[in-house]
Amino acid sequence: MSEQLNDTVVLNHNKTEILQDNKSLEKGQPVTKKRVDRRPKVVILGAGFGGTNAAASLSNSDMDVLVIDRNNYHGFWPLLYQVATAGLEPQSVAYPVRGLLRKYVNVDFQLNEVTGVNLENKQVITQDELIEYDYLILSAGSANSYFGNKSLARETLGLKDLDDASRLRNRLLESFELAVREQDPVKRAKLLTFVVIGGGPTGVELSGAISELIRHVLNKDYPSLDVYKARVILLEALPKILGTFRDSLQQKALHTLEKMGVEVRLGIPVETVENGRIRLKDGNEIEANTIVWAAGVRSAEIADSLGVELARQARVPVEPTLQLKDHPEVFVIGDMAYLEGFKEKQAYPMVAPVAIQMGKLAGANVLALQHNRPLAKFKYFDKGNMATIGRRNAIFDAFGIHMSGLPAWLSWLFVHLMSLVGFRNRLIVLMNWAYNYFTYDRGARLITGKKR
Amino acid sequence: MSEQLNDTVVLNHNKTEILQDNKSLEKGQPVTKKRVDRRPKVVILGAGFGGTNAAASLSNSDMDVLVIDRNNYHGFWPLLYQVATAGLEPQSVAYPVRGLLRKYVNVDFQLNEVTGVNLENKQVITQDELIEYDYLILSAGSANSYFGNKSLARETLGLKDLDDASRLRNRLLESFELAVREQDPVKRAKLLTFVVIGGGPTGVELSGAISELIRHVLNKDYPSLDVYKARVILLEALPKILGTFRDSLQQKALHTLEKMGVEVRLGIPVETVENGRIRLKDGNEIEANTIVWAAGVRSAEIADSLGVELARQARVPVEPTLQLKDHPEVFVIGDMAYLEGFKEKQAYPMVAPVAIQMGKLAGANVLALQHNRPLAKFKYFDKGNMATIGRRNAIFDAFGIHMSGLPAWLSWLFVHLMSLVGFRNRLIVLMNWAYNYFTYDRGARLITGKKR
Repeated sequence: MSEQLNDTVVLNHNKTEILQDNKSLEKGQPVTKKRVDRRPKVVILGAGFGGTNAAASLSNSDMDVLVIDRNNYHGFWPLLYQVATAGLEPQSVAYPVRGLLRKYVNVDFQLNEVTGVNLENKQVITQDELIEYDYLILSAGSANSYFGNKSLARETLGLKDLDDASRLRNRLLESFELAVREQDPVKRAKLLTFVVIGGGPTGVELSGAISELIRHVLNKDYPSLDVYKARVILLEALPKILGTFRDSLQQKALHTLEKMGVEVRLGIPVETVENGRIRLKDGNEIEANTIVWAAGVRSAEIADSLGVELARQARVPVEPTLQLKDHPEVFVIGDMAYLEGFKEKQAYPMVAPVAIQMGKLAGANVLALQHNRPLAKFKYFDKGNMATIGRRNAIFDAFGIHMSGLPAWLSWLFVHLMSLVGFRNRLIVLMNWAYNYFTYDRGARLITGKKR
Repeated sequence: MSEQLNDTVVLNHNKTEILQDNKSLEKGQPVTKKRVDRRPKVVILGAGFGGTNAAASLSNSDMDVLVIDRNNYHGFWPLLYQVATAGLEPQSVAYPVRGLLRKYVNVDFQLNEVTGVNLENKQVITQDELIEYDYLILSAGSANSYFGNKSLARETLGLKDLDDASRLRNRLLESFELAVREQDPVKRAKLLTFVVIGGGPTGVELSGAISELIRHVLNKDYPSLDVYKARVILLEALPKILGTFRDSLQQKALHTLEKMGVEVRLGIPVETVENGRIRLKDGNEIEANTIVWAAGVRSAEIADSLGVELARQARVPVEPTLQLKDHPEVFVIGDMAYLEGFKEKQAYPMVAPVAIQMGKLAGANVLALQHNRPLAKFKYFDKGNMATIGRRNAIFDAFGIHMSGLPAWLSWLFVHLMSLVGFRNRLIVLMNWAYNYFTYDRGARLITGKKR
């Protein structure tokens, strides 16, 4: 294996000496650099749960690892809805990737936008260079899917990263600022209608948090508005919310949401959205200034560039070892991977624990492949499901235990706090939670980012 | 006074009944609303130190107060340079204006961009309406002044609000991300050159903080870069920095900056900036990817709309009672006001304590005017000057005491912490400071805001 490397052209990422490939420079093509050492090179696309865990399991090995992400931070997205509802600062749910990886001397990071992968040439294509690899781990996560409905893509807000969360927070607060000055009751009602499409964990947690923000915080900020006229509507195309939880917990969650003032409408798919007017399949319409899309999700777009046949949600089918068929040097993990075996015949869900466990295995399997050891198959240790719905309420479905209310909420707080990366983030999130809980306030309700 | 109000047309801001002025609606002109109550109306432009203190001193009075700002937050800008250098989150140096004012029942807030003032008609002009006032307090603060030099305005970054600070933080971090991939040593040197123009407190604190960020934090993030090749340059047109401090403290600050690796160049004005190339008056040139303007400041642009003759830095000359000449119902305070009397014959400086004290007096004088009591003249209680320069170092010049080093630094920390609005912000800033101090880390070094 190492003999071949002498001839391959691989990007050197600043840790070894560099020779320019003058031919491609003259042609004005993307720059490729010749590699002069012989250490095999692993490229990891994405610094999420999967990518960072893969990098960690390849640390201190005899390989060079390069992690590429379009953001310079690793996000803890299970708390993103709290950023969107002004409960947490964006910085407390994200951690600088370089800070995360700098303890691993053989792991480097590059901030770059990857536009494609050339499996034949073993190259990752970025906007300004070609990066060659010996092993590739695809862990770029997921993107919103609108099922080809352009009006949905254009008119709704997403909740996939820090910028999305800031935009949603700005929109929520701006809607109130406009409403308080609006004299036309019809326009004001539209400004004060907030619709979340999708009854999965994100949609449930977000709609509950919006309702709480309005009833506990904004009611004091806008004494002249009757905030109880503000509507928070959760739309779900299926006849139930939180499909992955058991029935009794679904019922509890539904009941809690309704008690918090969220209007839950089940079994009614959305047809189109035009100028803030949502048309439902049953013919009804809802006018709203704020519409959030939390219904459809697919593999990150990079999957489309592989030239392989994709499974449901544009996910990439993988072998039980997480390898791509016909390309044993390529591993696909986390939200991007399609692998059946969850609850017997389902695909593993797009959740953090799957990505973490797949990341660890992918790193170990790359090492096994390099050293001619047998590869292991993916085995999932299911830590269960939890979702929080407002103050002192959550549902918890794990290890055969299912509970709701205060104990579930405390478990949720503990698990999420301990899963955050970094002592500073944990402390700041804990403090913000305590502050929000005791004061019914949200310190981060700022409208920012108007200039750039 | 209150009799006249029956005939005037004043915007009602949601706290009293409203009558539409149909004539102006038909003409398609900005909407004005008839006022049906008789409470006099005070409009305050700007929710900074001056405006919020004026509002507080008018609280629980027999007047309606409306504070207007283009941002929904009150910023504590003395700590803004720490946001720009990733030491603090943007949200911890800002506080929602509505949260600040909601304890005052007669004070309301409007998020709006004010474009002018019509002194004759007693109207504030916004993008979408005319707001009438009985009393006006102008406290819109300051803006950057480039002395008519368009290249400076276009090519440099400012540091006046949260968005500026986020942009500067993004630029600093992006420069390193680009530099680590740049093979051309000349281009890399430009990416790693950071120039701050202006040797006042902002320029001194910022250049020190950038140098500290590079040498203590980024050196670990970019092990393959020799960060000691990164240059931080502070340019000052005058032959000294920190002109408002006594000579011995200026010398101490200069020495500290140089020890921290900041190149300080005194007495050399900047002529032009083109494509990141700074041309100095002495003919020398500096190439830099990051250039910050902290040299020239003027009154907020709203001053230009008043039609009165402006003083130095476009500030508005006021009577000792802070009233505008010929318009006793208009008060101008803080950075916008030009009033001599500081250290005998100088104008009061553009600093927070002046704005705070002027704000309190303006509120009291409005009440005095309304109730036919004599107005008081502005008397400044000078709390002195302080500036921080890196870890465990600051200069302090107040109450006849002048000190530097650790005691000055501790005083700086204490004063700034206690001046922050809100228990949550104080606690989070304190925690971040402790974390940054003990770990030599900066948790907020994220590049955000790419989409919007």
